Amino acid sequence: MSTVHPARPASLPSPDGQQGAVEIGPLVLDCGVRLPQVTIAFQRWGELNAARDNVVLALHALTGDTHAAGPADDRHASPGWWNGLIGPGLALDTDEWCVITTNSLGGCNGSTGPSSPAPDGRPWGSRFPYLSIRDQVRAEARALEELGIDRVASVMGGSMGGARALEWEVTYPERVDSALILAVGARATADQIGTQTTQLEAIRRDPDWQGGDFYGTSLRPDTGLRLARRFAHLSYRTEFELDERFANAGQLDEDPLKDGRYAVQSYLEYQADKFVGRFDPGSYVILTESLNRHDVGRDRGGVQAALAGCSVPTIVAGWDSDRLYPIRLQAEIAEYLAGCVEFLQYESRYGHDAFLIEFDAVDAAICKTMELARKAAAARR
Amino acid sequence: MSTVHPARPASLPSPDGQQGAVEIGPLVLDCGVRLPQVTIAFQRWGELNAARDNVVLALHALTGDTHAAGPADDRHASPGWWNGLIGPGLALDTDEWCVITTNSLGGCNGSTGPSSPAPDGRPWGSRFPYLSIRDQVRAEARALEELGIDRVASVMGGSMGGARALEWEVTYPERVDSALILAVGARATADQIGTQTTQLEAIRRDPDWQGGDFYGTSLRPDTGLRLARRFAHLSYRTEFELDERFANAGQLDEDPLKDGRYAVQSYLEYQADKFVGRFDPGSYVILTESLNRHDVGRDRGGVQAALAGCSVPTIVAGWDSDRLYPIRLQAEIAEYLAGCVEFLQYESRYGHDAFLIEFDAVDAAICKTMELARKAAAARR
Repeated sequence: MSTVHPARPASLPSPDGQQGAVEIGPLVLDCGVRLPQVTIAFQRWGELNAARDNVVLALHALTGDTHAAGPADDRHASPGWWNGLIGPGLALDTDEWCVITTNSLGGCNGSTGPSSPAPDGRPWGSRFPYLSIRDQVRAEARALEELGIDRVASVMGGSMGGARALEWEVTYPERVDSALILAVGARATADQIGTQTTQLEAIRRDPDWQGGDFYGTSLRPDTGLRLARRFAHLSYRTEFELDERFANAGQLDEDPLKDGRYAVQSYLEYQADKFVGRFDPGSYVILTESLNRHDVGRDRGGVQAALAGCSVPTIVAGWDSDRLYPIRLQAEIAEYLAGCVEFLQYESRYGHDAFLIEFDAVDAAICKTMELARKAAAARR
Repeated sequence: MSTVHPARPASLPSPDGQQGAVEIGPLVLDCGVRLPQVTIAFQRWGELNAARDNVVLALHALTGDTHAAGPADDRHASPGWWNGLIGPGLALDTDEWCVITTNSLGGCNGSTGPSSPAPDGRPWGSRFPYLSIRDQVRAEARALEELGIDRVASVMGGSMGGARALEWEVTYPERVDSALILAVGARATADQIGTQTTQLEAIRRDPDWQGGDFYGTSLRPDTGLRLARRFAHLSYRTEFELDERFANAGQLDEDPLKDGRYAVQSYLEYQADKFVGRFDPGSYVILTESLNRHDVGRDRGGVQAALAGCSVPTIVAGWDSDRLYPIRLQAEIAEYLAGCVEFLQYESRYGHDAFLIEFDAVDAAICKTMELARKAAAARR
């Protein structure tokens, strides 16, 4: 990458561990529509080195945000999604690396999305354009450019974060020293599209959706979003783990033989309630659609050709019990990705969510990836 | 069974292959409520023998009905669900056996259910009582008694039909010569309850549900029922079979990169449309709840004790790719059921629906079961 920034910022415009934002100007999307002004929120831990080449870009999943490390706080009911993996002496050692997370374009936690104001000052709502994973990645690359970062030591993530990481290394192989691809596939499968389009139908059929223009009304399609989240949550876990925890027990003193709830039903309701309190239904629709459109092979001669063209040293990892992104999908990436160094097949009880739970495995995968990053950097110097 | 019928019908009151109905009078349900008048619809193929002991009771799944054999006709858009397995010279050879199917209590195809008139002449609707799989089985046993049938050569079925068959042999071991249990478990799992309670939530949240009393209005909660069916249908199939058929292709000339539909989305919409045209939302709710309540161990000291107490010669079979009733559940039945003679673990691309598709395997399982029936009959004579 030969972009020269006339005035490279001396340091990143956000204190360690706090969210900042970058204006990247207009962005033309895959669908042909031009978003006139795009903001990308980011967070970072650790300092940028003098060569500005120690950045690890860690990308969140569908409903994640930039809060990857740190405890629960005023804005976050849960600790960071990789809390314990990012920090001094940890897998992503912030004494060595500058870890950056970006909120995905289309999201609702700082970056431009359907709840953001359009140029007329009203929320985009139904006017927000069709979005692809590639659009998100282009926006992230532009955000890093604005920060004076032309190269990353590693790009990594699971699920939608994995889709973005894969698109990153295939789109910008010359800017990426290493990659870690977790719990994702090279393109959306029929099963993923099947459940996801039905989840979106539940939201759109909620009268409070109002065609996507519910912003500024006193109504939100939370009924539809709750339904979507309940089905999605089941797909993130495994049937045996759920059965060990809940079996067919009733919730506390409720009697499901009559009109009482089951324990697992109450659990899913709780997950859905937590979710509607923290996520925008419009972003859920836009980002889920971008996942449906995920296809690293589109306009590149298909998945195999696209993967064969990418030599970035990469670790691919997945979990045997993942029923949303079954391990056959990671095996496919590992088989065809020219740069794949190792394919890690892990066991877990937790299914798709393992990349957010099985931190011993993720830690090991990250450490292997950062070793690839060090080697690539040494070879360049 | 020593019930003596004062006037045993000389032959069954329905022509071969046509639906008949039996009035079984009042029925007290597990929940304590008394249904004052219950009708059970049935269909039969083959003649009852002189000893009245050649009946095979074949039980339909959640949304099935008595139409197990025969082609599509005016009332049925599809052939019978085991068409090709029932008839002269077939696995259920009607030259030897009298095959009977019963429409489940709570259903909508001839038996008493929420769409049936209550004593006041209005549909039961929200007043229909809580139903269990055991209630369905008690109603079926009473229906056979009314027909002068005190014993069955075999009881069999898959999914909800398997749950009923299992309850049959555990509740009435002295009336059952053999059983075939397909694609079911000994009790509902958390995952099944999780998806099923969320499906029911989609129906109940549809404003047209009207608290369950939509009958006689011009509205039906078809939006909710469609959503439920789409999620359910995904659980009946496998992700790899769907992906081989549809991948991430668009539907015909529609462009899913913009607002077009995916092929799998269109397929699920088609399945849902077909379904709402043939099934009552009230019955879907009542029968799905009975599946949630399925637990052969309830009030019997748990699953293991209940199964250990049943010596009916039984074939248990399942398919390796079933993601709704995973094969570990059939393995559990086979391990603890005292009468289990053989556990057949089949391979299939089709998942849970295999018991309605993989007819070579079902044929073989039925033939093994009928051999057990012949042995049991010979031992009795």
